[in-house]
Amino acid sequence: MDEFFVVGHSHPQIDGREKATGATEFVSDLRLPGMLHGRILRSPLPHARICRIDTSRARRAAGVKAVITAEDTPRIPFGPRTEDWMILATDKVRFIGDEVAAVAAVDEDAAEEALSLIRVDYEELPAVFDPLEAMKEGAPLIHDKPRNVVAEFHLSKGDMERALQESHAVYSDRYYTNQVYQAYLEPMACVAHVDTGGKLTLYAGTQIPSMTRIPYARALGLPLEKVRVVVPPYGGAFGAKMETNLHLVAAVLSQKTGKPVRMLNSREEDFIAGNPRVPMYIDLKIGARRDGTLTGKEVRVIGAAGARTVYAMVIVATACYRVDSLYRFQALKTEGITVYTNTVPTSCFRGFGNAQMTFALESALDMLSELLGMDPAELRMKNGLRTGEVSIHGWKIGSSGLEECIEKATQAAGWKEKRAPKTHARGIGLACCNHVSGNRAFAREFDGAGGIVRIGREGKVLVYHGESDMGQGQKTVFAQIVAEELGVPLDRVEVAPVDTDFSPFGLGSFATRGTVFGGNGVKAAAAEAKKQILEYAAGMLECSPSDLEARGGMICLKGLPTQGLPFQKVVETAVYKRGGAPIVGAGFWLPDTEIPDPVTKYGNIAPAYPFACQIAEVEVDTETGQVHMKNYVAAHDVGRAINPRATEGQVEGGVAQGIGWALMENMATEKGKIINPNFRDYVLPGPLDLPPIQSILVEPVEPNGPFGAKGIGEPALNPSPAAVANALYNAIGVRMTELPFTPEKILAALKAKKKREE
Amino acid sequence: MDEFFVVGHSHPQIDGREKATGATEFVSDLRLPGMLHGRILRSPLPHARICRIDTSRARRAAGVKAVITAEDTPRIPFGPRTEDWMILATDKVRFIGDEVAAVAAVDEDAAEEALSLIRVDYEELPAVFDPLEAMKEGAPLIHDKPRNVVAEFHLSKGDMERALQESHAVYSDRYYTNQVYQAYLEPMACVAHVDTGGKLTLYAGTQIPSMTRIPYARALGLPLEKVRVVVPPYGGAFGAKMETNLHLVAAVLSQKTGKPVRMLNSREEDFIAGNPRVPMYIDLKIGARRDGTLTGKEVRVIGAAGARTVYAMVIVATACYRVDSLYRFQALKTEGITVYTNTVPTSCFRGFGNAQMTFALESALDMLSELLGMDPAELRMKNGLRTGEVSIHGWKIGSSGLEECIEKATQAAGWKEKRAPKTHARGIGLACCNHVSGNRAFAREFDGAGGIVRIGREGKVLVYHGESDMGQGQKTVFAQIVAEELGVPLDRVEVAPVDTDFSPFGLGSFATRGTVFGGNGVKAAAAEAKKQILEYAAGMLECSPSDLEARGGMICLKGLPTQGLPFQKVVETAVYKRGGAPIVGAGFWLPDTEIPDPVTKYGNIAPAYPFACQIAEVEVDTETGQVHMKNYVAAHDVGRAINPRATEGQVEGGVAQGIGWALMENMATEKGKIINPNFRDYVLPGPLDLPPIQSILVEPVEPNGPFGAKGIGEPALNPSPAAVANALYNAIGVRMTELPFTPEKILAALKAKKKREE
Repeated sequence: MDEFFVVGHSHPQIDGREKATGATEFVSDLRLPGMLHGRILRSPLPHARICRIDTSRARRAAGVKAVITAEDTPRIPFGPRTEDWMILATDKVRFIGDEVAAVAAVDEDAAEEALSLIRVDYEELPAVFDPLEAMKEGAPLIHDKPRNVVAEFHLSKGDMERALQESHAVYSDRYYTNQVYQAYLEPMACVAHVDTGGKLTLYAGTQIPSMTRIPYARALGLPLEKVRVVVPPYGGAFGAKMETNLHLVAAVLSQKTGKPVRMLNSREEDFIAGNPRVPMYIDLKIGARRDGTLTGKEVRVIGAAGARTVYAMVIVATACYRVDSLYRFQALKTEGITVYTNTVPTSCFRGFGNAQMTFALESALDMLSELLGMDPAELRMKNGLRTGEVSIHGWKIGSSGLEECIEKATQAAGWKEKRAPKTHARGIGLACCNHVSGNRAFAREFDGAGGIVRIGREGKVLVYHGESDMGQGQKTVFAQIVAEELGVPLDRVEVAPVDTDFSPFGLGSFATRGTVFGGNGVKAAAAEAKKQILEYAAGMLECSPSDLEARGGMICLKGLPTQGLPFQKVVETAVYKRGGAPIVGAGFWLPDTEIPDPVTKYGNIAPAYPFACQIAEVEVDTETGQVHMKNYVAAHDVGRAINPRATEGQVEGGVAQGIGWALMENMATEKGKIINPNFRDYVLPGPLDLPPIQSILVEPVEPNGPFGAKGIGEPALNPSPAAVANALYNAIGVRMTELPFTPEKILAALKAKKKREE
Repeated sequence: MDEFFVVGHSHPQIDGREKATGATEFVSDLRLPGMLHGRILRSPLPHARICRIDTSRARRAAGVKAVITAEDTPRIPFGPRTEDWMILATDKVRFIGDEVAAVAAVDEDAAEEALSLIRVDYEELPAVFDPLEAMKEGAPLIHDKPRNVVAEFHLSKGDMERALQESHAVYSDRYYTNQVYQAYLEPMACVAHVDTGGKLTLYAGTQIPSMTRIPYARALGLPLEKVRVVVPPYGGAFGAKMETNLHLVAAVLSQKTGKPVRMLNSREEDFIAGNPRVPMYIDLKIGARRDGTLTGKEVRVIGAAGARTVYAMVIVATACYRVDSLYRFQALKTEGITVYTNTVPTSCFRGFGNAQMTFALESALDMLSELLGMDPAELRMKNGLRTGEVSIHGWKIGSSGLEECIEKATQAAGWKEKRAPKTHARGIGLACCNHVSGNRAFAREFDGAGGIVRIGREGKVLVYHGESDMGQGQKTVFAQIVAEELGVPLDRVEVAPVDTDFSPFGLGSFATRGTVFGGNGVKAAAAEAKKQILEYAAGMLECSPSDLEARGGMICLKGLPTQGLPFQKVVETAVYKRGGAPIVGAGFWLPDTEIPDPVTKYGNIAPAYPFACQIAEVEVDTETGQVHMKNYVAAHDVGRAINPRATEGQVEGGVAQGIGWALMENMATEKGKIINPNFRDYVLPGPLDLPPIQSILVEPVEPNGPFGAKGIGEPALNPSPAAVANALYNAIGVRMTELPFTPEKILAALKAKKKREE
């Protein structure tokens, strides 16, 4: 017999039918009465002083209801991490795409037309696009910060010199992780509506509905309670959809006009002014003893923030030290520098810095294992953290399925046989990763999550949470957890959309935290509701609540499923006895996590840590440099998979995204201008580019997870680029260190290798 | 020093600014994406068999998306009280305005045009319009019920024969209360949207959002949970806006088209197919001893239900026995008959039957006092129920301000002086009334009300309730009660709109129950939230929760308002400590009321009983019959007035509506056709028709009321027609027994009087 009835079983997404039939209204489908359409005039220059803006013709244009420049905004510096944002550019523009002015009009054509009537006089300034250049003496200063440095990260542990001396092998290299775009289906969009009381309601797809209000309220000069965020279904995010000026421009246009204002980025705007991945230069040196025991690791990371800071410095910090809790290290020396550049502001993308560093580390480990003459899988197995261990940074590994992931992945991939010497350009490569489920360091005020469960007369269960379903299936997972806890079928549960006027204050969907945090929050809420229901049932059945359990849609005597009352009947009676007031369970979950020490970074930052091992198999056409993905195995420690089919879907999506990054995706620029800002020129992997992907779910029960679950969002992508790089090395003997591995780069590497060998 | 900080103080309506600036979107302002417009084809005949409906041309018309007849509906009989409704007429039409077919089209013009293309072949049947005629042998049967009788009410208490024998004076008369229209500003309207899962969301102004789902779900053949009712702001109701076929027709049109369907009655439709007041014939006989002690009362009421039953029989029952708990009676004999007629279905209108009978009783008491040679005020004072008494039907009068109302009203009106013999046609008349606050008999399942209060990080308090603000100011009253309980300023409180997916299951706004029931429900919820907040504060202040109070926006040591922490700070800390979960207080209130015995009607049906005394002063132009209202005093026992200015507003509105009924309002018919279905021909009192109205709030503390409050909605109107009738008798010596007292009737009465006197 199954331990669980709903959890651990695969269910279609509860909002899948509406999405599949086209009935779902995504953010960009919203239409409010009297709604206007906003458009933004963006800078054509990467760095320039704004001398004059003449909006007079635009204001007179047909259908135009408002034209705004910085002068129409509160001009309060703000930002989620550093206060270097303005709603509209005030003195200078700092990247091609920077927001200069905006228009609200009766339709998009009128707004677009009005944009063309705004005249801006610029005085062009020297610009800098590469972070290494930007740090040089004499480089143009973007925000008047010395050397354009936004933030630095330094960390040193153990005796590095000794660690390297004791090493049998030391490998070092420089890696470059390029700028890639999240390529969600729905570009950034919103409808902002400021009511007569001055309260802003922002309908937007945002991963952090509660937290985003804090910088927004500051930017608009409003008290926090005057900013309400409602999250309709939205078409993907992958880290990009946190704060964006688009929302604030819409808010100011609505303030000016008194009407709801819709804004929707064109795909091009979304490329040039979205929040792509932080590109990084990574210098990495790593050593090991003869037996494979890792010794020291030294890294230096230079990351480009772009023209203002979104979360780049936190992403660089994550790159600097997250992998340190994947393996046992004795000494570490880490430096991370985040630098302004005259390019699009960069931010979160699945993996949050850990993806970048995992590429470097796992590539380097492959070389290290070669130096040691050791199987790469063996090297990971030897050093990987196991259940019960505490990492060098104090991370308490409550459960680790890393070993099992490596075992199962290698077995499924035919690792032993396929590593054998090659006759042609076919190879297999392996990479591992760790990650967090939640990150105590991200919000200072608190960690944890709350949920509310309310059950009305009909016995229908409504769940409120403060996270955000960007399409990953969060709602279904929450519904399953609540259904399991209450012993009712899944279709008795509905999950309310997030609305900051109604939902718990939640941190949102990032850091692979949704299932563990939100899941525990709604589980606690369901448990509290169940407690009340069992009390009412005990009164009706004349027994003690402790004799009862909720199971199979019944409240029944423990172990006697037919001896009881239907859940619905108990709830109806309870609601009548309560004067119509529904059963409301407000629950919450507080993990035992720690804010890391500001200097040592020591502190258990997450309640759970997922692990993974992925294996790529490739074949290279050495004439063209074309890489063919032949097979892929992804074994993931997800704790208990609440919804296995959806978890596998996440794995497949992550691998596809990782392969895209490894082989083809790149935001190409010329003098700060992105030259491929569309899906014709920016190539994503299609079905034919992808190999069969075998997902293996490794399910150690995580003690802190709801029903033992961890998260899967980010780990799904983290190891993929390294797995591909290592497979390429295995296939053709060239070590690719700069993403993506385009045919041109592979041909060049093959040519250089040939030259070396000659 | 004031006992209360928010309650008992006058506040503008919290939604007043939005309404005054036109920003409020009423039901008829709603526009949903893809929305269609529905129109109904109504019967032009009062009684006819439907032989054939040809919709083929309409279906082909431009812009038409659906045309429906009864065949497209589930054809399940339903209704709030008796199952004599169909969504669309199936076999017969029964009144002019009956719903025959409906169209949904891209705009209203296309829908209207399509209606004209539907051809219906009728076979006309004999019709009957007057309930007395309808009860006669051989009258056409409307629903195949013997004598067209819907329901009968019989009640007999005490020895009536002896009571009348012991009387010094007995007065009897026949009264007629006519059909009047509620004349709310916004006609009935809705948007119905059936989603791909078959769930109906109905946006509608309804007084009973939770209860109305029950007959609607039945009519549509849906489980209850598939019917969600959302109540946007709406433009008045006065009893009319409970169930209406309009909502169901919209629902079926949305089922057929998959689109939201908006429907809005034209004013004419609202007159001919709304829910006007139940017209009644009332025969009343009443006796008193020489000292004025009332003895027996015998009544017979015949009420017209119209062509189907909304709530008419309950309204007739109310007419039959509610006034019995205004005065002390020794014997009662009551018969009430509700009869089908081929006229618009009749229903609730402020006063709910009690208004009709109060007109009769208070008119008769005036004559009785004349027979006794006793001041009419004296007669009421002698017999009126006082605090602590139990009425003949078991009603426990927890507080009665009747005596004080009479005292204060007579004093303010200059009663003693103005009753003196007349030199010209000017007179003064008095009438009293009682009413209920809530009615245990209305819903069998339960009595009471629930509320939910949730307080997020910002300290903003959100209140959920299940009642309905039809414009009377319910939201403001609830906000005041919660603010008082939590010790925060009123502007910290918001009241959520009713949405049956989110709100407590509530009975709704009727029977003057909102303030007492909903108010107690939200007060209990606020108290529960406060309990949690005090516990958190006690932890922060290192004291016991019992040492603390919530006051002036602070949680402070009792009696030491500066020794404490701001409410907001405590809440923020608590929310962080709860993993973001807001403070949620789910409270409820169950009154100690009783379902009356089915035979004896004995049982305390309400937790509180409001009383009133109104005095009208009139002058009659005896040449034209025109009545000029000179002055008006309305003293109302409202318990504690939560929002005095709004309470006075309710009184003034009720008196205005009562004067309109007394002097001018009448739905005039010719052979079942309403001939004045618009505001040009149906005359409402304007400002110039109204006298100065002095509202006097009498405030005995009601032990069952929230902060001592009772209700005011209905009593404000109940005594007005009798007060005017009694003033007219005092002015010109004619007893007007048929509403309204038009100049023609007054001239005729004066002429008849003159003839009698000659």
